[in-house]
Order: sequence, then structure tokens, then C-alpha cells
Amino acid sequence: MMSKVHNFSAGPCILPDAVLKQASSAALNFDGLDLSLLEISHRSKSFVTVMENARSLVKELLEVPDGYSVLFLQGGASTQFLTLPHNFLMEGGKAAYVNTGTWAKNAIKEGGFVGEIDVVASSEDKKFTYIPKGFEIPSDVDYFHFTSNNTIYGSQFHTFPETEVPVICDMSSDIFSRPVDISKFAMIYAGAQKNMGPAGATLVIVRDDALGHTGRNIPSMLDYQVHIKKESMFNTPPVFSVYVSMLTLEWLKNLGGVPEIERVNKAKAELLYNEIDNNLMFRGVVEEMDRSVMNATFVLNDSSKEEEFNKMLAAGRINGLKGHRSVGGYRASMYNALPLESVQVLVDIMQAFASKNT
Amino acid sequence: MMSKVHNFSAGPCILPDAVLKQASSAALNFDGLDLSLLEISHRSKSFVTVMENARSLVKELLEVPDGYSVLFLQGGASTQFLTLPHNFLMEGGKAAYVNTGTWAKNAIKEGGFVGEIDVVASSEDKKFTYIPKGFEIPSDVDYFHFTSNNTIYGSQFHTFPETEVPVICDMSSDIFSRPVDISKFAMIYAGAQKNMGPAGATLVIVRDDALGHTGRNIPSMLDYQVHIKKESMFNTPPVFSVYVSMLTLEWLKNLGGVPEIERVNKAKAELLYNEIDNNLMFRGVVEEMDRSVMNATFVLNDSSKEEEFNKMLAAGRINGLKGHRSVGGYRASMYNALPLESVQVLVDIMQAFASKNT
Repeated sequence: MMSKVHNFSAGPCILPDAVLKQASSAALNFDGLDLSLLEISHRSKSFVTVMENARSLVKELLEVPDGYSVLFLQGGASTQFLTLPHNFLMEGGKAAYVNTGTWAKNAIKEGGFVGEIDVVASSEDKKFTYIPKGFEIPSDVDYFHFTSNNTIYGSQFHTFPETEVPVICDMSSDIFSRPVDISKFAMIYAGAQKNMGPAGATLVIVRDDALGHTGRNIPSMLDYQVHIKKESMFNTPPVFSVYVSMLTLEWLKNLGGVPEIERVNKAKAELLYNEIDNNLMFRGVVEEMDRSVMNATFVLNDSSKEEEFNKMLAAGRINGLKGHRSVGGYRASMYNALPLESVQVLVDIMQAFASKNT
Repeated sequence: MMSKVHNFSAGPCILPDAVLKQASSAALNFDGLDLSLLEISHRSKSFVTVMENARSLVKELLEVPDGYSVLFLQGGASTQFLTLPHNFLMEGGKAAYVNTGTWAKNAIKEGGFVGEIDVVASSEDKKFTYIPKGFEIPSDVDYFHFTSNNTIYGSQFHTFPETEVPVICDMSSDIFSRPVDISKFAMIYAGAQKNMGPAGATLVIVRDDALGHTGRNIPSMLDYQVHIKKESMFNTPPVFSVYVSMLTLEWLKNLGGVPEIERVNKAKAELLYNEIDNNLMFRGVVEEMDRSVMNATFVLNDSSKEEEFNKMLAAGRINGLKGHRSVGGYRASMYNALPLESVQVLVDIMQAFASKNT
């Protein structure tokens, strides 16, 4: 029998084995109904319970305070780039954004379709290899937006900017990876397909009293208040993605929750970054203090050795280590479900590669 | 062993057994990768092939002419209600809509966020129990929009309105159920969760040269030209829903395609409507000539017998026959994957019920 695949994919990414088994089973017979989860009404008692459980688990795992709503929507973070300014940007108002890479840039672009966007800081001058610090957030903007973790470049905010204006954060690639004080945010959102579940669902956590102040007439699908009122069932939700997200959140809870997974995530990141720093064949891409715990980016010092290293990765059944097509090099995505063991296998290969070449 | 459940659910609805088995298997190990379909990159060769196959199957099954693009998006028809006017309604222009019930009404409402909507016909005067006919479509509108099948009230356009202006149709609940001359449409769209697959994917078929004429600056996620250029991968697509849709379309192809399923669908509808018309306990809701082949709505002549009939339905393992909460009565949804045998079981119960009561 072949050894297992070590799945470092950047997203959609590794999910826990137990979750995949339950998902597979539900596709045949769900909740003892003798029907597949894929063919039942989203308004059936069985699925309404799934939606309620998913919502409760988000609240419990992230310690979401009262006064916040949890939504499961569709369309990914890219849809939220457009939806959030509709809900938070006043007519004639202005919002402040930080540009830390591709996704932040997209958020800025789509925000511009709704109103004025002020880019208050950017790390584009050094190819997004660091997180801007010490920048000022004007007090007259309607909100401040940032991307907590840059999946593509491998940088991450380890402390969050402080400001009096409402803070909105795209946490697509690090939500549920570390404790977050939700009360500091007006809104958090995340595509499911990293730490929460499969592609197709989008999580939104929004402070209720931050909504309804823009004076805008908002189309229904872009109006958080509509989705809150309809409990994420204004239209047919992405049933399967919500269910698998619920399973993944249950798995996380049983594991000990967010503080416990943070401990594991830090151990994985430390193991890999130590190797990157000590192995003469490689170097890291991002400034040390801004390195992402989720996505470690690194390159070969001698790019002519690439083919040799890639062969060793393939032989070790390492999947998804190729850097994003816009960046190159290597990227090890170490999301919640990736076991420490997989990182150890990668580190062993990096060491064997160094031994062969010195 | 219990007999199988007869799944008349209105959507999400019955899918073919063989498709459910393949979906279940892919959730564990997809394409021989030793990875679940839920945890691989949407840009992996395996998934890109799925997307290409799904697109090809749509083109083949509906005989989509050259010059049209096929997209798999997210957000359901409700999102298209907003997206389509962005792409087709000129700045300062006007569009014509027919109001045949809940979904048509929602399309009209969301269109109103983008521009002027002229409701040229409505069947609201008789609770949407018929399809308006003989109405005029002004020649100066940017497009004409209608809903081919009303899932909730059980009415269906059996011939399509003729006009010189671009025609756009929401075919969510009858696409792939009968042959359609795509060349007569500027755009067709459908939520997957009836005849195509599970919830979470939305099909759009659009004529390329009908796009790009509005003078609008369209946000990326609402811009069909963006999605066409990126081959439905502008952002992470709903991987699992697209895959199961592909499987369902393959199933339909192997069955003999759309003309063959139309034959089966007509046989199912004839069997049930005959019973409704000949059984003294029941009456149909919709005018005979406008009855939907997909969703048959009917009521008891004596509503005090409801509990008795419901018990017989439960004993016969009939699922999802309850009418929509806004209408009441009964609704038998007979989508593509529902076998004739299930309709026969329902008809037998209706006859047994009549025998007991006469």
C-alpha cells in the first residue's frame, strides 16, 4: 500500500479524514432519511438543524459576542469585496484599505465600484514580502479594511491595527487558526475553502448595529440585513458546503478548539521555518516577523536544482507545494487539518536534498 | 428492508442513484489521486477537466450554438436577478418582464435596483394559476425577461414569447427537461438544484455578442465578460457542485439526452394529471393548458381529509409532496431523475384514498 499523500494545497485544501468520511456517507444517506444530503430540501428539518449547528459552532469556537450575526453565503470573498462596501460605505463616504497583495488589491478594486477607497498603506514596493506597520488610519473614513493573511505571498498580520473606525477583515486563509477578539471587528469574512470546509460557502460575522446606516438602497443578495433576517436562507444555500463546514467545525471543537489548533499550527510553522532558515539550499521569501503561520513561502538558492527537488517531493507524495503562478518558488500551506507529521516528511526531504548537494 | 423513498422534493431535489454513488466516492478519493475532491486545488488538472467536461456536456445536451458561452457561477438565480440587468440594461434604458409568480417577482424587484423595469404582463390577478398570453413586448426595451417554469405555482410556458428584443429566461426549474432553441435567447440561467445537480452552482448560457453594450462599469463578480474570460474560474468555483452537475449531465447523455428525458417527463406528467382530473377527491390548481410538466400542484376537494391522505403518503414513503408554504395543498415535483415508478406509487395511493372515501 502506498503511503498517504501529504496535502499542502493552498485552497481548496486538506480536510480532516473523519470529515471526508462523514461527507461521503451523507452523499448516500443523510440523517437516516434514506435520501442523500444532495437531494433534500434546504428547508427540511434535517438541514435546518445543520445550518443552526454550523452557526452555533462558529459562535462557540470564535467566542462571538452577543450582537453579532453569523451568515453562510455564496460567492467567496470576491463577492464580499463588493457586498461589504454596499453595507458599510456611506453615500459620498470613504474607506481605508491596506494593500498587502492580490486579494487585498481585489478588495480595493471592487470597493471602488461603490465609493472612494483610500489606500493607507501598501507593501507592493517590496513585492508584498512584508506587512506595512505604523501607518495612520484617518478618523473620518467609514471603515478600515485589511486582509489578515496573504495566502499567495505568505505574509500575515500578527497584531491587528488599532483604530476607532469600524474594522473589517478578510480572514479567508487564517480564520479558526488562532484566537481572535471578535469584538474589535465590525465584520469578518472568509471563504470556506481553507480552514472551514470545501469551496462553495462563505462565512460572514457582522455586528448587527453596524448595519443599516449608509442610506443606500441595497439589492437583496448584497444586503446583510436581508440574509440575517432570513437566517442565511434568503435563497437556497450551498447545502453540501455548509454541512461539511459544520463537520469540520465539530472536528475542531473535539480537538480542543481554536487555542489548541493554534498550538499545533505554531509547532508546524516553527518546524518548517527552522528548516528553511538552517538549510543552505533554501531561503524564505517574507520578512521574518511577518511570516505566515498558514502559508510558508520559500525558494531555492540555486534554481537549477529545482527539477531534482521536485522529483524528491513527488517521491515523498508531497502535494500542492508549487508556489502561486504569480510568484513562483514553493509554498507550503499548513492549514488546520494538515498534521505535523506531513510537515516532518517535508522537512526530512529538504534535509535529504541538502545532504545530496553538499 | 424498507422500500425506497419516492422523492418529489421541489428542490434541492432527487438526483440519480448512480450520480450519488459517484459523488460519495469522489468525496473520499477523486480521480485516483488518493485525495478527496473536496481538498484539491480548483486549478489542478483533475478539476479543470471536470469544468471543461461540464461545459461541453451543457453545449452538447442543449445544442448550444457557436457564439455562446457557458458559465458555472455561484449564488443561485437570485444573484442572476441582479447580475443580468448589470450586463443587459443600458444606462437610462428599460427592460420588460412578465410576472408569473414568486421568482419572476424577485427578478423584477432586483432588476429595479439597476434600472427601469416594465411589467408587461402578470397572472397575479388569479394567484398565478395561468401563464399570460397575447401580451405585447415593446420594441424599445433592452431585453425581455421571463421565467419558463413556476416551481411554486406549477405553471409553465409551453411556447415562448416571440420578440425582436433580446430574450432572457430563468429556466431554473425546467432546464434540461425539454429541447430548447438556444439561438432564440440572449441568455438563459438556472440554479443547479433541480435538473442539473446539487445546490451551490448556477448555470449561465449567454450570447457573447450581446455583452459589453450597456456603457456600465460593472463590478467583476457581476460581469459575465470577466467570468467568460476566466472560464468560470475568476475565483474559486463551487467545486463539488460543478462535479456533481457534470455527473448528472453525463447520466442524462447516457440516457439518450434531452429528447428522451422529455418523453419520460411527459409520461410522468400525463399519468399524474390524468389521475388528478379523474379522481373525485382532488382538483388541479393551474389552468390545464399551462400546467407544468415539472411541478404538478393540486388540492383536496375536502380539506378535512388532509390528515388521512397525508398518513397514506407517509406510509407509501412519498417525500416532499407538501405544497410551498406560500400556497398550501400538494405539489408533486417530477424532475428528470424521478422515475415513472414513483409517480405510479403516488397515483396508486391517490386511487386507494379515493376508494376508501367513496
